[in-house]
Amino acid sequence: MSEKLNEVKPVFRMWLVYRGKNVLGKGGADLLKAIEETGSLSAAAKSLGMSYRYAWSYIAKIEERMGEPVVFSTRGGRGGGGGMRLTELGRGLLRLYRRFENLLEKAMEQEARR
Amino acid sequence: MSEKLNEVKPVFRMWLVYRGKNVLGKGGADLLKAIEETGSLSAAAKSLGMSYRYAWSYIAKIEERMGEPVVFSTRGGRGGGGGMRLTELGRGLLRLYRRFENLLEKAMEQEARR
Repeated sequence: MSEKLNEVKPVFRMWLVYRGKNVLGKGGADLLKAIEETGSLSAAAKSLGMSYRYAWSYIAKIEERMGEPVVFSTRGGRGGGGGMRLTELGRGLLRLYRRFENLLEKAMEQEARR
Repeated sequence: MSEKLNEVKPVFRMWLVYRGKNVLGKGGADLLKAIEETGSLSAAAKSLGMSYRYAWSYIAKIEERMGEPVVFSTRGGRGGGGGMRLTELGRGLLRLYRRFENLLEKAMEQEARR
């Protein structure tokens, strides 16, 4: 067996699809998680080094593809810097993403130890 | 819970890396498998709807990144339409790819049935 093979590692990427469209990958999941943790889109964007505008368009894209909101504002207008929280759908998407990500990571780790 | 969530499905892609470089994804694995099965690069390329030239450059890229051959010719020059087989490294890469692909697919299926 070639010794180089020992240095070859598997890598994976996963994302969620809804009706054939990518709705949540690592970037989106990180953003939803940060909104959940900070309770604010501007704080979430900042923590990820994204501009507010970029974070906002990211969320808008997810909502457009799902045809339903994944966040709601807790005071003031949505774009006005008020608080933001995840809707039930937003939480559900994030949970689903994490569940599968976890599963794949564990499977890979177990296999790598064999 | 939003009913839409039931329609959201996880998707994954995986590939092998060697020293930080992508060496084998689905396309490469399909090509190595076809070479293994047909014993010829031209037959393998044909079975995948690739041009001979494209298949050849695909293999060359893998070998360049691994710094070692993944195929060898069984008669005549390598580019001369002779037979082609996988080296030990080529077989090892293909086996590793399939093992992890299988593992991830099974993990996803089991989870989806829950």
